[in-house]
Amino acid sequence: MIEPFNDDYFMKQALEEAKKAAEIGEIPVGAVVVANNQIIARSHNLTEKLNDVTAHAEMQAITSAAEYLGGKYLNECSLYVTLEPCIMCGGALSWAQIKKVVFGARDNKRGASNGDNIYHPKTEVLSGVMENECSELINGFFTKKRKR
Amino acid sequence: MIEPFNDDYFMKQALEEAKKAAEIGEIPVGAVVVANNQIIARSHNLTEKLNDVTAHAEMQAITSAAEYLGGKYLNECSLYVTLEPCIMCGGALSWAQIKKVVFGARDNKRGASNGDNIYHPKTEVLSGVMENECSELINGFFTKKRKR
Repeated sequence: MIEPFNDDYFMKQALEEAKKAAEIGEIPVGAVVVANNQIIARSHNLTEKLNDVTAHAEMQAITSAAEYLGGKYLNECSLYVTLEPCIMCGGALSWAQIKKVVFGARDNKRGASNGDNIYHPKTEVLSGVMENECSELINGFFTKKRKR
Repeated sequence: MIEPFNDDYFMKQALEEAKKAAEIGEIPVGAVVVANNQIIARSHNLTEKLNDVTAHAEMQAITSAAEYLGGKYLNECSLYVTLEPCIMCGGALSWAQIKKVVFGARDNKRGASNGDNIYHPKTEVLSGVMENECSELINGFFTKKRKR
């Protein structure tokens, strides 16, 4: 079956990235950046492996997409991420003037959407895409971790 | 004259970093991370050179200090930065659980302190250290830029 290039399709790709993070013991968050229906950056959380709190999936995706494009503004790009961006990542997405942010699971504790809107005024934010799959992955990770 | 290791001393070091940024046409912001009165990381803004909105002085300083320490938490460290951290950098400093944040010039538009306190509850925040020198450097940069 040929999958159309829609929000679900790209979120599935972000989920694949999140699963890679889970496999190496990282909090499973994955992201992709899309320009003209083409994935130009893929990343997953690497905070443990890199010993670096700034190595969230979104931060790496922003850096990687800007590198690919040769310019630091992502105003023609969409970011798909399995978990709602935190304030750090929301701030970075704002500086990048990203066109669209799509996230799956909500993060009621650390999510950037809890306070004032910190995104660029032109940024469209869409939440809840493949929310169940994204939530199950991250909740399952923490459930397993607590059982250990 | 032997300079004591106080807030002014470390802010002067951050200012030296900011001047390096100015010399290469970057918005002049500099930072140092200090542990036990020793500077373990130095950085300056490189967003233009690296084509990367995440390359703020603070972000690089956090990554560099964690690399030096071999651990991602900076709960025994102080960060000195010439300009008030933005929301992205404030969020990163929160994740790093940094002990103390000291900044020089205020950023009334983009500063993290404008909204709710986004830092870790244990983080001490000190503002206005060498404020005039820090403000003059950054304001001078923008004045020159506008004249061109």
